[in-house]
Formats: sequence, structure tokens, C-alpha cells
Amino acid sequence: MAEKPLVGVIMGSKSDLPAMEACTKQLEEFGVPYELVVASAHRTPDKVHEWAASAQERGLKVIIAAAGKAAHLGGVVAAYTPLPIVGVPMKTSDLGGMDSLLSMVQMPSGVPVACVAIGGAKNAAIYATQILATSDAHYAQVIADFKKQMAEG
Amino acid sequence: MAEKPLVGVIMGSKSDLPAMEACTKQLEEFGVPYELVVASAHRTPDKVHEWAASAQERGLKVIIAAAGKAAHLGGVVAAYTPLPIVGVPMKTSDLGGMDSLLSMVQMPSGVPVACVAIGGAKNAAIYATQILATSDAHYAQVIADFKKQMAEG
Amino acid sequence: MAEKPLVGVIMGSKSDLPAMEACTKQLEEFGVPYELVVASAHRTPDKVHEWAASAQERGLKVIIAAAGKAAHLGGVVAAYTPLPIVGVPMKTSDLGGMDSLLSMVQMPSGVPVACVAIGGAKNAAIYATQILATSDAHYAQVIADFKKQMAEG
Amino acid sequence: MAEKPLVGVIMGSKSDLPAMEACTKQLEEFGVPYELVVASAHRTPDKVHEWAASAQERGLKVIIAAAGKAAHLGGVVAAYTPLPIVGVPMKTSDLGGMDSLLSMVQMPSGVPVACVAIGGAKNAAIYATQILATSDAHYAQVIADFKKQMAEG
Amino acid sequence: MAEKPLVGVIMGSKSDLPAMEACTKQLEEFGVPYELVVASAHRTPDKVHEWAASAQERGLKVIIAAAGKAAHLGGVVAAYTPLPIVGVPMKTSDLGGMDSLLSMVQMPSGVPVACVAIGGAKNAAIYATQILATSDAHYAQVIADFKKQMAEG
Amino acid sequence: MAEKPLVGVIMGSKSDLPAMEACTKQLEEFGVPYELVVASAHRTPDKVHEWAASAQERGLKVIIAAAGKAAHLGGVVAAYTPLPIVGVPMKTSDLGGMDSLLSMVQMPSGVPVACVAIGGAKNAAIYATQILATSDAHYAQVIADFKKQMAEG
Amino acid sequence: MAEKPLVGVIMGSKSDLPAMEACTKQLEEFGVPYELVVASAHRTPDKVHEWAASAQERGLKVIIAAAGKAAHLGGVVAAYTPLPIVGVPMKTSDLGGMDSLLSMVQMPSGVPVACVAIGGAKNAAIYATQILATSDAHYAQVIADFKKQMAEG
Amino acid sequence: MAEKPLVGVIMGSKSDLPAMEACTKQLEEFGVPYELVVASAHRTPDKVHEWAASAQERGLKVIIAAAGKAAHLGGVVAAYTPLPIVGVPMKTSDLGGMDSLLSMVQMPSGVPVACVAIGGAKNAAIYATQILATSDAHYAQVIADFKKQMAEG
Repeated sequence: MAEKPLVGVIMGSKSDLPAMEACTKQLEEFGVPYELVVASAHRTPDKVHEWAASAQERGLKVIIAAAGKAAHLGGVVAAYTPLPIVGVPMKTSDLGGMDSLLSMVQMPSGVPVACVAIGGAKNAAIYATQILATSDAHYAQVIADFKKQMAEG
Repeated sequence: MAEKPLVGVIMGSKSDLPAMEACTKQLEEFGVPYELVVASAHRTPDKVHEWAASAQERGLKVIIAAAGKAAHLGGVVAAYTPLPIVGVPMKTSDLGGMDSLLSMVQMPSGVPVACVAIGGAKNAAIYATQILATSDAHYAQVIADFKKQMAEG
Repeated sequence: MAEKPLVGVIMGSKSDLPAMEACTKQLEEFGVPYELVVASAHRTPDKVHEWAASAQERGLKVIIAAAGKAAHLGGVVAAYTPLPIVGVPMKTSDLGGMDSLLSMVQMPSGVPVACVAIGGAKNAAIYATQILATSDAHYAQVIADFKKQMAEG
Repeated sequence: MAEKPLVGVIMGSKSDLPAMEACTKQLEEFGVPYELVVASAHRTPDKVHEWAASAQERGLKVIIAAAGKAAHLGGVVAAYTPLPIVGVPMKTSDLGGMDSLLSMVQMPSGVPVACVAIGGAKNAAIYATQILATSDAHYAQVIADFKKQMAEG
Repeated sequence: MAEKPLVGVIMGSKSDLPAMEACTKQLEEFGVPYELVVASAHRTPDKVHEWAASAQERGLKVIIAAAGKAAHLGGVVAAYTPLPIVGVPMKTSDLGGMDSLLSMVQMPSGVPVACVAIGGAKNAAIYATQILATSDAHYAQVIADFKKQMAEG
Repeated sequence: MAEKPLVGVIMGSKSDLPAMEACTKQLEEFGVPYELVVASAHRTPDKVHEWAASAQERGLKVIIAAAGKAAHLGGVVAAYTPLPIVGVPMKTSDLGGMDSLLSMVQMPSGVPVACVAIGGAKNAAIYATQILATSDAHYAQVIADFKKQMAEG
Repeated sequence: MAEKPLVGVIMGSKSDLPAMEACTKQLEEFGVPYELVVASAHRTPDKVHEWAASAQERGLKVIIAAAGKAAHLGGVVAAYTPLPIVGVPMKTSDLGGMDSLLSMVQMPSGVPVACVAIGGAKNAAIYATQILATSDAHYAQVIADFKKQMAEG
Repeated sequence: MAEKPLVGVIMGSKSDLPAMEACTKQLEEFGVPYELVVASAHRTPDKVHEWAASAQERGLKVIIAAAGKAAHLGGVVAAYTPLPIVGVPMKTSDLGGMDSLLSMVQMPSGVPVACVAIGGAKNAAIYATQILATSDAHYAQVIADFKKQMAEG
């Protein structure tokens, strides 16, 4: 990817990669340059901290954070960056993802994480692109085309 | 408000106004021009349709949609606009807002609504401003100051 | 089907078709003429709008709406037609259909959607026929026979 | 009420009366003749049985059944009549009405009860009238006017 | 079974038979004479009514009622007999049996159904035998032996 | 109470006494001699152990166990006595009693506790009396009268 | 407090102080020296980071972390210290604390937080003291006395 | 294992052994001597009682208790020992482990059980070792190394 990434995709575990492919694939179809990192808020907090704290300087505009169970990743990233965070609560084998959803969405006053559906990897990519589209005519066209195709298909 | 609104705040019922004051108050503190509308996806669908379909042309960048129970408002607005929607699931007296949350967040593939916490009116305002800040240095500074104040306070 | 449809069956996605076969099969066994449409409240809102808004004029008496997750379809159709809507909340892989159920059943005051069980495709067909039977002696007999058979079987 | 009742409103307990006033009041505003009975599926099963079994002969077209907790009333009535049942799950003090909702809506194959929202007394009245309107031009006009007023109000 | 049945086992559907085998097998191991009936509170209410209403006269002491989803069977049987009812909420494919459990256990004041665990077929048999054991030295010994074996095994 | 107690009522905390008054009052109305004890499975396990282990010898026929939150009391008593246990899950201020219900009802294979509704104190008394009535003509009459009164009232 | 603190009590918000008084009061009754800090994983992440990362060096043995909603505090502290964390999920006004509980307890493999009950402030103090008691005869005696008193009281 | 056990691992059923292997394997990797027992709070209460009551004297420092459904084991052990209990709520086939979690974590005031995640067998081992590490430099090093490895891996 030659272009400078605009979207950062972070996930808590390598095991989230297959479920998040729908996200990166959609970003690629939209031609949105992104960077991908696997880092855990709990196991590798310093890596998350550094990645999040420097995200804005590195040119990222939006961050997609995917995590499961006690899904703190979105909140921890949000603590260290002013960028908007799109949370993807991962489906879990015991509680279906209700744990991930509540852990992500119920953020306290002052530090929002905005969540898409449980397992909503593709929608996170669309949403991140919608954010880019608020100030970039190219991505606005990309989203307009996508919605048109969807309405036709 | 002389400035052209950048954020549209829509809610399903007048009864949501008190809970959403934390949202509009925060937008005002941030100096974000917004427009406010009460319209129901079910009772006044044409009003919602027109408002949503013309939102982008009117210059809005982000939409905050607040609704309770079978909270379809965010999804219905999302169907008619390419703008990013920030959903605010309202607390409900019987199920605590679990119904509102699931009705808002579990959007199908292709049409995301990104939700903040149940009753997260203030966070919706912050998140909308974070989106504006991705392309506007003024709001980037506003958010930076807000986060600094929060860290100090 | 030569006869003019009396029941409209709408579902949000082609993927709902297998689960809804129990509905159309039951309508056929009852000899109830129906029309079937796949249209999404979010991806193809205009199609839903037009279909719903003209339903009564086209002669439909009852609408069966099936959708999953943030299942807005029933509510959106209800917004555009005075006909009674029978909602079928689809089972979902993560939350079992609790999301679909709450998104369908918890409609706000003024615009009801009446729901059958999660995955209750067959019961939706029976219920729609019961509604027809309130004013049509033929369908009243059909329902009477069905209940008798059930009691005997 | 001189007119012969078209809607039967049954509730499991006298304590449901205040919550169901929104239902009877709406029926009265719509000019729908109804009969009201308090009878418990568990405490007075014979009364329910007789009332349900003779409902169609007495000229009723639709039944609204309201009950809370293990809310069997709708199902029990449905067992004894071919008429469509509109279930109203009552809010409960411990589980918020989730128990009432699941007990009403999750009916087995063959015997549907279609539910409105927890505490949806008013919507049950509207829905019952929508059913009457499928075959009665007067009630069709009543519903059309109601929807128009709602859209304007 | 030559002996007069003491326990009545009723289930809502033939599909409950495999899950309830653990119940009948345990009754047989305990040497408790029982009768088994498949009857639905909704599809064959008269059969349930007659069976329940004559249960005491036929010599039954305890009734085990198994049902799933909107599991009204226990309550409906309880309405027609003074005998103690042991409810077995069946596991369901969408909500895991939470619907069955709440539909069975949340009985209103005056008409109890006492439930064992979701899918607790074997425990229902043990419990019914414990009830017999309150007045029959033979079954008291059976239960004592069972508990001893369990403690040793 | 001059008569030898037949029902043992045990509760985990003095704070359960007001909610359990409906139980003891109903037992008194039925003329069922009972003994009442406050003992915690966790704070005073030996007291529970001794009370439970000697319950049968003391002449008790049925035990009513009321507890809230991680409501182990019923299960712990069941471990030490062959008598049937009627569990009363107490309403809780945070989860409404869902915790109490699951902790009581989901007993493992071999050791049942049969639960009435959350807060079902009165129903526990009725159920215990129904158990006594399986072998005692006096209590059978008491229950018959109670059901008759209920059907008339 | 002259003695060097052994237990660190951290909570996400000043609003948690009243609910956590039962914790600090119990530590004081046990004579356990503690330090108290209010710091948010999201609003003041650096403060939490520093406090957690230096906790072991400062002589703390156990950390009690109390937070509500998307309660990440326990997990974030756990990421920066090898000390055992006792989580206290705070009751919430909408979901009763189910969100706090799942956000705290469902920690991923490698980084445990062990939770007490929703609102279990006092139990967290007891548990922390039990941990101290595993290597300190004085606290072992304190716990032994406490359990004895409880059994007697 | 020549060394005297420091951690006691107790589980309610042999069927919990496969899921708990991740616990014992981790203890072995950490070189923590442990003893393992299968005993049910309900089926073999005396065995649990004796094991728990003598745990401290036998030299155990921490107890890991794993159980499912109405998971009383942790609470029952806690009633008989002053040692800290780490609860492992087992996943269940019907409710996903929500029943196990609530039954374990919602302990009443005075007798805490601190829970790790549903199925958190490995984390229970880590947590128990963290407790040992509060007073043993060797285990402190083991935990430090583990965290370092995790951060690097």
C-alpha cells in the first residue's frame, strides 16, 4: 500500500483476523489506505498505547477497534487519541457477543466509542469511509456509488 | 445560531428532549452549529425521509439520532443519507434500554449506525465533533482542549 | 397465482427465504393468494416505501414482515400503510433472535407491529389467515378446519 | 354501549386495569364497541374457556389479551377460539416484562398470538382496529384519519 | 405397568420425548408407576383439560409437565388440578430455554408450578419421587438409597 | 404453635423476612404448622447443615428455602435432606432476581430444587401444602377449598 | 494512616465513592492500611498507568478496582501490574450492572481480573484481606475472627 | 508432585475436567504444586465440607473452584475455609454460562468468591499464582516472566 494510511484497524488477538477480513476487504474495495495491527489492551498495553497516542500524527483519521469478551480495546485506544473510534464487538462462543457489545458501547461520559453490530466488520469499514467522506469528495463519491449499487442490487 | 449547521440532531419524540439536552449543551460548548428536529420514523416517516435525504445538501456532516424502544430512527435516517449516523439508544422504563440498544446497533450489512452508550447524549456530541475534527483544525483543537481539561480535571 | 394477492410477504434479505418457506407453504395450503417481495428497509428503502404505500390500493389486507437483527422492516412498512403488520423476528446467530424480537415488538405508541415467535414463519401465515377470516366465511372455514385437524392430529 | 362488541378485551387480573385503560380509551375514541372481562387462565380457567370458546359466536372479531409474568392468557384464549389474538405483555416489577413478553410471543407452531410491545395497551387497540379495517370501510377511514392526525401532530 | 400410576408425565409435543426419556427412565429405575401423555395446551386444550381435571381421581399424586418456548402446559394443568406440578422447561434452539423457564416459573399468585432446571428431566423424576416419599416409606427408602449411592459414587 | 411442624421455612437473611411474610401468612391461613429459621448457607453453614440434616427426623415433610443473589440455600439444604425443597428466588435490586432464579433453579442432575416465581412467597406456601395434600385428606380439602374460593373470587 | 498501604483501592469516578465506602470501612475495621485513588481508565489513562505500574514497588499487595458500565478499569490496571486485581462491578441505572459485570469479568486469557458481586464493595475488602492472610498470620487471625463472629451473629 | 500443594483445584463434576485442563496445565507450567479433587456441593457435600474445612491446615493458600449451572461449589467451599476462592463459572449448553456466572459471582455480603471469566480456567491458574506471588519472590518472578513473555509474544 503506497498511500499513507487513513484508517487504523486494530484488533485484540490474531484470532480476530478471519472475522475482520470483511472489514479490510471492504476498505480495499473502497480504495481506503489502512494500517492493520494486532495488539491487546491487556497483554501488550504499551504497544496499544504507543500506537494510539501516535495515530493522529501518523495521519490516521479514524480507528476501527475490534475485540471480544471484556472488549476494552476501543476504550483504551480512545483514551490515548482524539480520533473517532469505531468499535466492532466480536461474537463470543458463550454469550454470543453480548459481553463484547456492552464492554465496548457502554463507555462513560467524555470518552465515546461508537459501535457497530456484533461481528459488524464490513459495516465498520463502511462507517470509517463515511467519516472520511465528510471532508473528501473522492470518498463521498465512493460512498454514493456504494449506496446506489446496494439500492440497485 | 448564525452559522450553517454541521451536525443534525434528530430524535423520535419530544419526550427525548430532556435526555438529549446533554447533547445539545455539549455541542454548544464546543461551538458546533447544529440543527434539531423531532420526527418519528413511524409516526412522521415522510418528515424523516425528507430531512435525511436532504441532510448532505444542506451542509450537514454528521447526524445524531436518538430513539428508544424499537429504535429504528437511526437506521431509517441511514437509509436515506450517506452521512455517518451516531445512534443514541434511549433508556427505557421496562427493559432499561436494552431494546433501544439492540434495535440501533444490530444494523445489517451495508448500512451502519454507530452507537454510543444507552443514554449517551453527551458522548454523541463529543463523537460528532471528533468526526468534524478529522478535517477541521478548529474542531481538532476543541477536542484536544477537551481531552486535556478532562485529564486535568 | 391467478387470484389477486390478499397477503403481502416482505422480507429484508434473500437469506431469509429458507426460513420463510414455512410461511408461504402454509399460505398455499390455506389457498391464500399472496405476493412475495425481498426488500430491505435500509438498503432499498424506496422499494419498501413504494411497496408499503401502495399495498392497500393493490388489494392487500395483511402484511407479513420478516427481518433479523435490527429488524426495522415491520416498523418501516407500518409507517407507510394502514394495514395490520404481522412481524416475524428472525433467529440470529449471535443473540438467538432476541435482537430481532425487541427491534420488532417494542414499537412506539401509535404504530403497532404485532409479532409472532422468533422464527415463527408458519404462525405468521396462520395469523394472517385468521385476520382474513374475520370477514371471509371461506377463510373462517379454513381456519376452523385447521384447528380441528390439529386437535385431532 | 348499545352496539354489539367487536373486540374482546380480556386481562388476567384487576391489577391490569389501570395499565389497560389506554387500550379501552383508544377503542372508545375510535368508536369500536368492545367488551371487557377480567379472568385468569390459572385462577378461573373455566371462565376463560367459556368466554373464549363463545367469542366468535357472540360476534367478536378480534381479542386483546393482556397478562403479566407467566402470561399464558393469550395462548389459552387462542386455544379455544379461531379469532386473532393481540397479546399485551404487562410490565413486571422484577424482570421488566421480559417474562411476560416471552411467555406471550414464543407460541408454538399452530397457535399464534401476535404481541405488541411490553405495556403496549394503546397499540393493541390500534392494531385490533386495523384488523377490523381490513373489511370495514368505516374503520378503514378511522385508521386513515388517525394516521393522518399523527403525521400532522 | 400393572400398578396404578402415581405420577403423570405430560409433554407438549412428541418432539419432547427424547429429552424426557431421562425422566421416565429414572421413574422406572425408582419403580414409580407413571402414565405418559403427549398433549398440547394450545393445540389440544380439551385433551389437556380432561387429563388434568381427572388426574387426582385417577390416583395420580404428582404431575410432571414438560414444555418449551411459551411453555404454558404446566400452568394450564395447574389450573385444572390440585396436584403439585413439577415443571420441566425445555431447552430451545434460539433462546436456550430462557423463554421456557420464564413461561413456566413466573406463575401468578395462587397457582404455583415449581420448576426444575432447563432440560432437568431426570431431576423432575427425582423430585416427584421425593414428593411420594413424604408419605410412603418405600419411596422414602428409594430416595435414601439414591442419595447414598450418589454420595458414594 | 402446638402442632408439630410439617413445613420448614428457611431463609438466608433476616432481610428476607418481610418478603416471606406472604408465605408464613398463607401457611397459617391453611393451618399448616411450620417452623421458621434464618440461616445462611455461607455465613452459618453449620447451622444450615444441622437444620437440614435433621429435618426429616424432626417430622418435616417439605422445606421452603428462600434466598437471593447467588442463592445457594436451596441447593445446600437439598444436599443434606431427602425432603422436597421448594425454592423461592428473592427479587434483587440490581438484576431483578434473575441471579437468584438461575442460582436456585439450574441445579445439577441428582439434586433438584423446584422453584416458584421470583418473590413467589405465597405460592411456595400453596405448593408445600399441595405436597402435604398428596397424602393427607385434610390438606387436600384445604387446597380444594382454596381453589374453589379463587375460582369464585 | 501511618502504616504503608498494602491494598490499593482505585475507582473510575468520584461518583463511585459512596458505594465504595463499604469497602474502605471494612478495610479500616480489619486494620488494613490502604491507599485510595480516583482515576479513570478513559479520562485520565496516564494517571492510572503510573499508579498501576508503580503499585508493586510502592508495596501494595492487592488492588481493588471499582468501575461501572464499560468497566475497563480493572483490566487496564491488570495490564500494568502483576498484582492480583479484585474487580467490583458497579450497579448501573439502566442495565443494573450487567454491563459492568461482563466488562470486568470476561477478561481474555492471560490477564485475569477476579470479580466480586455487583456492588460487592464490602466483599472486595474481605477478599483482599484474605489474600493478605495467605502470608500474614495477623490478617489470618483477623479473617478467622471475622468468620467466627459472622457464624455467631 | 513431591512438593506440598499450595493451590487446591476443586470441580463439581468429572465432566469439568477437560475444560479445567487449561488450569492445571498452567499451574504445572508455573511450577505451582496443586491438588485436584472432584466433589459436588450437592451430591457429595460431606466430601466438599471436609476438604474445604481442612484446606488451610493442609497448607493450601488458594482454592480454585469450578462449577456450572447453579454453581454453588465456590460458595460452599468459601463457607468452610478462610482461604481466598477463585471461581471458574463453566460454560453451559443452554444459557452459555450466564447461570454459572451469576451463581458464582453474586455472593452475599461476608463471604466473597472472586470469579474469572466463563470458562476462564487458565486465568484462574494465573490469578492463584498472582496471589502466591504476593508473598513469595519465586512466584513473583514467575508472574513477572509470564507477563514479559506475553508482552513480547
